[in-house]
Amino acid sequence: MKIISTNQPDFKTFFCNLLAARTADTSQATKPVTEILQAVKNDGDDALCEYTKRFDRLLLSPTELRITEQEIKQACKKIDPELLDALDLAAQRIQKFHEKQLPPDLDYRDDCGFNLGYRWNAMDSAGLYVPGGTAAYPSSVLMNAIPAKVAGVKRLAMCVPTPDGHLNPLVLAAAYRAGVTEIYRVGGAQAIAALTFGTQTIESVDYIVGPGNAYVAEAKRQVFGLVGIDSVAGPSEVVVVADRHNNPTHIALDLLAQAEHDTMAQSIFITDNEEFAHQVSLAVNEQLKSLSRKEIAETSWKNHGAILVVKFWEEAIPLINRIAPEHLELMLENPDDLFSKIKHAGTIFIGKWCPEAIGDYVGGPNHVLPTSRTARFSSGLSVFNFLKRTTFLKSDEKGIEKVGPAAVAIAKTEGLTAHALSISSRLDSLHK
Amino acid sequence: MKIISTNQPDFKTFFCNLLAARTADTSQATKPVTEILQAVKNDGDDALCEYTKRFDRLLLSPTELRITEQEIKQACKKIDPELLDALDLAAQRIQKFHEKQLPPDLDYRDDCGFNLGYRWNAMDSAGLYVPGGTAAYPSSVLMNAIPAKVAGVKRLAMCVPTPDGHLNPLVLAAAYRAGVTEIYRVGGAQAIAALTFGTQTIESVDYIVGPGNAYVAEAKRQVFGLVGIDSVAGPSEVVVVADRHNNPTHIALDLLAQAEHDTMAQSIFITDNEEFAHQVSLAVNEQLKSLSRKEIAETSWKNHGAILVVKFWEEAIPLINRIAPEHLELMLENPDDLFSKIKHAGTIFIGKWCPEAIGDYVGGPNHVLPTSRTARFSSGLSVFNFLKRTTFLKSDEKGIEKVGPAAVAIAKTEGLTAHALSISSRLDSLHK
Repeated sequence: MKIISTNQPDFKTFFCNLLAARTADTSQATKPVTEILQAVKNDGDDALCEYTKRFDRLLLSPTELRITEQEIKQACKKIDPELLDALDLAAQRIQKFHEKQLPPDLDYRDDCGFNLGYRWNAMDSAGLYVPGGTAAYPSSVLMNAIPAKVAGVKRLAMCVPTPDGHLNPLVLAAAYRAGVTEIYRVGGAQAIAALTFGTQTIESVDYIVGPGNAYVAEAKRQVFGLVGIDSVAGPSEVVVVADRHNNPTHIALDLLAQAEHDTMAQSIFITDNEEFAHQVSLAVNEQLKSLSRKEIAETSWKNHGAILVVKFWEEAIPLINRIAPEHLELMLENPDDLFSKIKHAGTIFIGKWCPEAIGDYVGGPNHVLPTSRTARFSSGLSVFNFLKRTTFLKSDEKGIEKVGPAAVAIAKTEGLTAHALSISSRLDSLHK
Repeated sequence: MKIISTNQPDFKTFFCNLLAARTADTSQATKPVTEILQAVKNDGDDALCEYTKRFDRLLLSPTELRITEQEIKQACKKIDPELLDALDLAAQRIQKFHEKQLPPDLDYRDDCGFNLGYRWNAMDSAGLYVPGGTAAYPSSVLMNAIPAKVAGVKRLAMCVPTPDGHLNPLVLAAAYRAGVTEIYRVGGAQAIAALTFGTQTIESVDYIVGPGNAYVAEAKRQVFGLVGIDSVAGPSEVVVVADRHNNPTHIALDLLAQAEHDTMAQSIFITDNEEFAHQVSLAVNEQLKSLSRKEIAETSWKNHGAILVVKFWEEAIPLINRIAPEHLELMLENPDDLFSKIKHAGTIFIGKWCPEAIGDYVGGPNHVLPTSRTARFSSGLSVFNFLKRTTFLKSDEKGIEKVGPAAVAIAKTEGLTAHALSISSRLDSLHK
């Protein structure tokens, strides 16, 4: 791994290349996804069964789309109790953190006699997409479902593909633990279509969350506006900032934990000590050998990884804010100053005993985070995704007398006669 | 206008037809918009000037894209001082309401020794699109720009087309008042492209807000994810709930204030008194005559308007929550019970002296609201659009000892070796 210092002449070019979008081109998915959405909208369950046969090699009748309560309970029985306890600890901690997010309503009287404010309400229903195969992570089920439940969403429908009929029982257990009310064995763009338009078996929802492949991402983009969606997630990344008081092996493993997700993932290490940079680089090579997903992690590290050496920590701040990383580790003796100056990041992990993987499972904050520099303008999943505000205004005669004439003046200049008259006719009745 | 009671046998069918999406098909815009986005991404200012020549019949060199401070100040001088005062009152009230929305940060220590929380930060920059021609509303400029400024966004770039060189000076005045930092005379999908990708003259932004035609809406949909966007707005609507203690003319004008926006707009009147329903219906016909946008209002009212008579107010609640109206007026002697049971609406106007048009200009809450039933899952524009949360976790040895083993167990079952090792290697060093 090349180690580059901020004072090298090619640093700026190197850094800009690091920032270049890693998002794969999904334009090839546009047309097939449009067709799938239209087919499910028109033909409902029949289209779902047809696509499930084609893509998942699974023959289903519409009555078999939904996974039964008995299947779910039997799946839970198969699982090691220790693992169920671990999921339970994770669920409890996620729930507690998200309960703290519930925002207060607003209601006040202003100096013109208006009562103004807003009330938060949960949406009625949400859909949760869970990928099939190796990417079916029980932790993601908890992270997506629990905020919805805490927000107060009554109906939570989950779709998960079961290629060749295979399904991870832990995913069912996590869904059961998180309070998912319905589970369907449907995946891909057809699942997003069903959740959006509804079919004979699957009722439509108001909002769709959850990660997926390029087809799922494109389907979410196309239905955005008909239903709400969380985000279109890109490849993920970590920036690890560490001083030489860390164990190089620990830092190497934190970098590899990101890299093992996906060949497009990105791990960037920032330190102030060139000797330590070399130690970590060697440790990465050493630790790579032991990983079950060695090839993925190695490709990610080679193609997108980087080690940057700064002269002093202050130099790291604009670099981190430019990257706006999904995950940021501050493995420093004195992290507070740096922490206070980071404006753009998904989640920040502080202290050498708090690696990113803690946050993936049992930290409490959500692991669904803005990827690929989108932390510049967006946040991780939270109860806010499942709540919306209704603002309100209440006034009596005094209110309209004070502010009405200004509204009439603006309405007239905008050419909206009925707007102006709806106020001036009331002012006239007051003055009669 | 047909008046229909909830006890009529065809009520259910009638109501479902009312709910049917009014959104126009924008699929024809997909391909041209993709081309425009690509051209601006590749050719920057040159493409902007070329499209401005083609669509706005305006020859510009790149240096003329930005509207100068002098032009803005001269525009302000042309405006009636009374109107400037009206805009100022509106701006003050919008600002005060939005200041109340600024949310608190979170920081607490939990029973496992973790420090958990989040911090809100504003995004660095935002772009504001303003339509040209008759739809260039100064009130919308205030409603879009002020929440960004209150949130703390430093850079606020506005794009507005000037067809044949024509520009509403009030739009410039409103932008100046609201703290917009840059204004460019560019419109359409090319403006959205410039704000997303940046050009030689226009620096890219993090987030784009503001209404526009089908091309602008499609462009926002296509760039969603590269930048944040507020929403893709559809045709707007009002539900007016009024008892017979109202003046029928006032209620008629409230219905027409919505209808005059757009032939696709929808005005629905709900009352408990059939005689009053007839009076309002007649008043609508009478008031239509006086409107400058008579044809638009009449088409909207004929095609999409409705008068529903309920037996008692409780009956109105599920109807309103199904509609999830952008605007809801509760013109009732005792509105509190109904108000407390509405879960899905953009803004609620309470009391017969508080018509919707007050909220369009000088109420304080935002007039950029979820349209076409999207209040089921989304909220009006607010400071939240321009803020994002960074969550954080901080722990010492105690924290990782308590929750680390559970994380290791889940990581292993998910097949993520480096995740598991990044925690277990730290637990090992503690136990040495």
